[in-house]
Amino acid sequence: MNETNQLLAAYNRTAYPLIGHGKRNLQVLKDVVIELDGNRESDVYGTGEVIEEFQKKIATFLGKEAAIFFPSGTMAQQIAMRIWCDKKGLKRVAYHPLSHLEIHEEDGLKELHGIEAVLLADETRQIQLEDVLNMGTNVSCLLLELPQRELGGELPDYEDLEAISAFCHEKGIVLHLDGARLLEALPYYQKTAEEICQLFDSVYLSFYKGIGGIAGAILAGDKPFLDESVVWKRRYGGDLISLYPYILAADHFFTTRQDQFNKYYEGAKELASLYNQCHGIVTRPVVPVSNMFHIHFPLPTKKLEPILLSIYEETGVGMIMRLRDKDEASSYCEVNIGDQYASVPKEVLTKAFQLLDQKMKEA
Amino acid sequence: MNETNQLLAAYNRTAYPLIGHGKRNLQVLKDVVIELDGNRESDVYGTGEVIEEFQKKIATFLGKEAAIFFPSGTMAQQIAMRIWCDKKGLKRVAYHPLSHLEIHEEDGLKELHGIEAVLLADETRQIQLEDVLNMGTNVSCLLLELPQRELGGELPDYEDLEAISAFCHEKGIVLHLDGARLLEALPYYQKTAEEICQLFDSVYLSFYKGIGGIAGAILAGDKPFLDESVVWKRRYGGDLISLYPYILAADHFFTTRQDQFNKYYEGAKELASLYNQCHGIVTRPVVPVSNMFHIHFPLPTKKLEPILLSIYEETGVGMIMRLRDKDEASSYCEVNIGDQYASVPKEVLTKAFQLLDQKMKEA
Repeated sequence: MNETNQLLAAYNRTAYPLIGHGKRNLQVLKDVVIELDGNRESDVYGTGEVIEEFQKKIATFLGKEAAIFFPSGTMAQQIAMRIWCDKKGLKRVAYHPLSHLEIHEEDGLKELHGIEAVLLADETRQIQLEDVLNMGTNVSCLLLELPQRELGGELPDYEDLEAISAFCHEKGIVLHLDGARLLEALPYYQKTAEEICQLFDSVYLSFYKGIGGIAGAILAGDKPFLDESVVWKRRYGGDLISLYPYILAADHFFTTRQDQFNKYYEGAKELASLYNQCHGIVTRPVVPVSNMFHIHFPLPTKKLEPILLSIYEETGVGMIMRLRDKDEASSYCEVNIGDQYASVPKEVLTKAFQLLDQKMKEA
Repeated sequence: MNETNQLLAAYNRTAYPLIGHGKRNLQVLKDVVIELDGNRESDVYGTGEVIEEFQKKIATFLGKEAAIFFPSGTMAQQIAMRIWCDKKGLKRVAYHPLSHLEIHEEDGLKELHGIEAVLLADETRQIQLEDVLNMGTNVSCLLLELPQRELGGELPDYEDLEAISAFCHEKGIVLHLDGARLLEALPYYQKTAEEICQLFDSVYLSFYKGIGGIAGAILAGDKPFLDESVVWKRRYGGDLISLYPYILAADHFFTTRQDQFNKYYEGAKELASLYNQCHGIVTRPVVPVSNMFHIHFPLPTKKLEPILLSIYEETGVGMIMRLRDKDEASSYCEVNIGDQYASVPKEVLTKAFQLLDQKMKEA
């Protein structure tokens, strides 16, 4: 067993895990299925009450004319990019170099569609208004990810967002929201999903991040756009005869968690503050703007993992699941807050972070 | 409600439905989930015991080195075609004009890959050895569907299959099996899946046709081919974080039904014979070679549906779910046999077909 697996295994044994909603085990599906009426009919190739009602519900939530459920955000967003490129007759889209499309999709957009990516900003910072003003108008679509996962869930100022939206609309550039974690952005902006989505022509929302479903995504926008997306969904092999296991889980957890994101956000700010009080540790952002942040440690995994393992052992607090080396002298990880954080007793938490501070000083 | 929906609604109310395994309702998932251990971990992006064990099991069943689970056969087969085309550096594949790729996928193969299809045989008959011998060698891959759904589940002679396979291997043409309904072909051939798959370089198997799962497919072949398919699966957005709802259902129903296909085949032959004894009705094939066949009626839907509705009403037998007009004077439908047929009392069946024969004579 390598060190990373050892940390995860130890984390999974702790009494007080701090991250997310809990284990991704089959119980998640069991909890959803137990309450279902077995006589309800399956969806059939995108039709039927199970899928149509959910699509309507989320379209309304996002303030869009229509919505289509997809097996994945990868599929939904590539299809969105393709439709917007076809509309303008220009196979160029702009996004951040740490966008999901750039780093997690094996160049699907290029390999399946021949669409070229114009990368804005860089790996140290978000896309800003100036990047957009300077990118020129030779792109069909600009994709913004809110909050941006690979930057610790950072968010641009809302005024900048409004200015970017106004610029794109003026220049005839489609603005697409990678809202995989859109609900996670609402508490900071103090806006509704509908208000934010009004700035965008199309929106993708994921159901297994903060919402904690099993898989699946929604693509929302105007009806002609989504009618085209259904044709592409079939071309991709995403128009499954039955998507209901994902839809029912998405609906279940959307309903139970949609009002919890302020609590997760407050938890993230509190937890980040605990880390920042420890010797040498810095979070990004220092004050989180969503339910997530990154933690940067002035020790490599090889030295930090034994420290964490001893704290898990002594206090029962599971702090981190996976740790990555940044260079020979430092490491980092991602943390997101879900249902679990609030149920950890404060005195246990305090004890764990006192230990962490002390051990970091000694290291 | 239109007439077709009326027929389906009436079928769904009958006490003795003849087709398939039963309703595609949420109970299918409930039956699978009820027996699961909630502590079992989810698959995660193609890894984990749930997906890996099932892939191994099906690879062994098909006699192939490896297998990968996909959300759909559409995705799996397009990817197979792309890999084989890339290998030969030639974007041309051959298949039947009624292949799933040609009629049900919105030209995905062309739109996503620029792959050209060479269509062999025609809408009245299967691909024969002579079609293959005459197609030339200017294709990367030949795809055969066994049994061929849109031709009533017809199958070529096994000797022809062996000759086609030998020819392709000699000429360096990859032979791919669209085995969506492969288990349905075994009783007629009196061969194992492994024996049939030996004739092919790659194989696709579906889990929601005769097997009766919820959705999903396996692509099997040699390891380098499947390693490439995993990259494409990610590009397509098919590498979902969790595919377990489909995998667990596929495994459950594969296990419970894999030995039932001889029974389904015998049932199909019996039921086709009952139809063929009715005035003016002919099945295709006249003697089924799988668990399915088509039924051709010398009446348009408008005249036939009232007859069927009255028989459903009088006998409780649900004969047909969906009926399509062929022309102004005739109609047809597809029938497949699953778990339900064997439990219909013979005297009830006899009564229903006596009525059908009589009403067809009077019509």
